[in-house]
Amino acid sequence: MSKITVLGGGGWAIALAMVLNDNGHNVTIWSAVNREVEALKTHRENKISLPGVIIPETVEITNDLKSAVNGAEIIVMAVASSFVRSTSKLLKDLIPNGQIIVDVAKGIEDDTFNTMTEIIEDELPNCDAVALSGPSHAEEVGRKIPTAVVVGATTKETAVKVQDAFSNHYFRVYVSPDRKSIELGGALKNVIALAAGISDGLGFGDNTKALLITRGMKEISLLGTAMGGHTRTFNGLSGIGDLIVTCDSKHSRNRRAGVLIGQGYSLEEAVKEVNMVVEGAVSAKAALNLSKKYHVDMPLTEAVNDVLFNGKKPLDAVNELMNRDNTSEHVDLLWK
Amino acid sequence: MSKITVLGGGGWAIALAMVLNDNGHNVTIWSAVNREVEALKTHRENKISLPGVIIPETVEITNDLKSAVNGAEIIVMAVASSFVRSTSKLLKDLIPNGQIIVDVAKGIEDDTFNTMTEIIEDELPNCDAVALSGPSHAEEVGRKIPTAVVVGATTKETAVKVQDAFSNHYFRVYVSPDRKSIELGGALKNVIALAAGISDGLGFGDNTKALLITRGMKEISLLGTAMGGHTRTFNGLSGIGDLIVTCDSKHSRNRRAGVLIGQGYSLEEAVKEVNMVVEGAVSAKAALNLSKKYHVDMPLTEAVNDVLFNGKKPLDAVNELMNRDNTSEHVDLLWK
Repeated sequence: MSKITVLGGGGWAIALAMVLNDNGHNVTIWSAVNREVEALKTHRENKISLPGVIIPETVEITNDLKSAVNGAEIIVMAVASSFVRSTSKLLKDLIPNGQIIVDVAKGIEDDTFNTMTEIIEDELPNCDAVALSGPSHAEEVGRKIPTAVVVGATTKETAVKVQDAFSNHYFRVYVSPDRKSIELGGALKNVIALAAGISDGLGFGDNTKALLITRGMKEISLLGTAMGGHTRTFNGLSGIGDLIVTCDSKHSRNRRAGVLIGQGYSLEEAVKEVNMVVEGAVSAKAALNLSKKYHVDMPLTEAVNDVLFNGKKPLDAVNELMNRDNTSEHVDLLWK
Repeated sequence: MSKITVLGGGGWAIALAMVLNDNGHNVTIWSAVNREVEALKTHRENKISLPGVIIPETVEITNDLKSAVNGAEIIVMAVASSFVRSTSKLLKDLIPNGQIIVDVAKGIEDDTFNTMTEIIEDELPNCDAVALSGPSHAEEVGRKIPTAVVVGATTKETAVKVQDAFSNHYFRVYVSPDRKSIELGGALKNVIALAAGISDGLGFGDNTKALLITRGMKEISLLGTAMGGHTRTFNGLSGIGDLIVTCDSKHSRNRRAGVLIGQGYSLEEAVKEVNMVVEGAVSAKAALNLSKKYHVDMPLTEAVNDVLFNGKKPLDAVNELMNRDNTSEHVDLLWK
C-alpha cells in the first residue's frame, strides 16, 4: 500500500481520507490552517463539516507540507477551489516530476477560464494532474453509503492507478480520458442548480425542475463539445449525476441561494443570507462568457445571468424561456 | 382551432384536455367506462386522479366513440397502456387514412416488445402515430406549472402540427424524429425507478440514487442505440428528465414498490400493498429479454430481475454491483 496525502481538512477531504485509510493506505491529512490541524488532532473529527466521522489514529494530521508530501505516491487536492492555485504554488519545490495530483475541487477560474487541473498544471508543469468528480455528498461517503465517481486523466495508466487506490465496496470508481468535460460539468452544473433553486423559490414543481435539469445539462454539454469535450461525459456521473444530487440537496448553497432569489431576494441579499460563496453565480458569468467565445446558444444560462446581474424578474425570465420559438429537442437529429 | 379528442378519463387525459382547451381547441373527452363518464359529467372533475381541476363546460364528455372521433384533427390516446391495443381496435372503422393519433401511454408490450405507437400502427396501419412524453406530473400540468415534453413523429410536418396544438406558455413542446427512443426511454425508465426505490428502502442515500439514475439511463441508452435509437434522446426530456421526476416522486408506484422490496417485501407482497400495476416489473423483464436479443450488457437491469424474480436479496445485489470489475465510464471514449 502507498503513502497518499490529502491537502485540506474539510468534509470532502476527510471523507476521501477515510476511503483511502479503509483501503489500507498510509494516509496523511495536511491543512494550512493551524487551528484546523489542532482541532482535528484533538478531536479526530471535523465537528462542523463532517460531524460523526472519527478519523482513526492511523491517519496522520499535520501542518508541515514538506513532510506531508514527501514520498507520497498520490496527492489529493481537496482545498476550496479558490485556494487551488495558491496551494499548488506551495508544492513547487516539494514534488518530483510526474507527481500524481488528484483534484477534487470544482470550479472555473475567473478571467483564465482554467479548470482546476489546468491551474495545477499551470503552476506545476511537470505533474500528472487528475480530476475526480461525481455525485458524492461527503456525509454519505463518510457513512460508507454506496457511491460512484469518475476519474479523468491524460493517460490510462495514471487513471487506473488512481482508480485502484480509491476503489472499494462502497466507493466505485470509473475511469475516463475526458478530464476536461468532467471538470466543466462539475463546475457549470451549479448554474443549473441555481436555476432549479429559483424555480423552487417561485413555487414551481418537479416538472419544471426536471425540465431545467435536462435542458440545462443539454446546453452545458453543447458548450462542452464545442470546447472539445464529449457529450456522454456530461450525461455521466460528473455531469447529470452530480447535478441531480445538487438539485435534490437541501444542503446545496447554490440551490438555497436560488430559492431566495426566486422568492424576491437580490443576489447580494441571498449571498449574505446563505453566508458562503455561491459558486453558481461565478460559474454563470464564466458560462455566459464561454458561450459567446464558442458561439453556443445557452438561453437558460443567459436567463440566469439576467436574473443575477441585470435585475430581470425571475418570473419574467421563466415566461420568456417558455415562450421562445418552438424548436426541436435535438437539432442535429434529422428527419427521414 | 381544431376538434381534438382525448381518449381516457384519468388524470393525464384530463390535464392534456385542459391544455388543449386553454389553447382554444374544440375538445372532447371520451371514456369507455360509463360510470367515469357520468361522474365527469356530473362533477366536471376526476376527484380521484386529478382533484381540484375543474373541466369547463366547453369540453364535451361522452361515451360515444363514433361521434367523439368524427372530424377530429388529432386523437389523443390517453388510456392505460394495457388498453392501447383494445382501444385501437375500436377505432378501426371510425377514422380516416392518415389520422393523427398522439399516444401518451407508456410501456412495452409483453412478447411482441412493441412500443405503444407500434401497437397502434399494428391495429391501424393507415394512421399517423405520434408519441408525446416527458417529465410531466398531471397534477402540475393541471395547475399550469411550467412543463416541457417532446413529441416524436415519423414526419416533421406531423410533429410540428402536434407541437402547435399543444404548445402554450406553461406547456412547452419540442419535436423529434426519434419516436422509438422516446418510447423506449419512457417505458424502461421504470426499471430504474424501481431500483432507486429499492436503494431508498435499503436506507442508502442521494449518492446511490444519482449513481443508479446515471448508470441506469446509460445502460438503457446502450440498449436503445443497439435498437436503432439515439443516445441524446435518452438523455433528453423523455428519458433522464422523466426518470428524475419519477425517482423524486412520492406518488410513483414503481418507486414505492421498490422501497417496500428494499425493506424486505417480496414483489407479490409489494404489488399487493401498492394495490396497482407496477410497470417497472413488467418493463424489467422486457428489458432483460431485449438485452439478450441485442447483446447489450445491462448489469443493473439483471440485478433488478434477480431481486424481483429470482429471490436475490437486495443488499447482495448492491454488493455485487459495487464489486464488479473496475471499468471505464464510457468504454467507447478512447485514450490518446
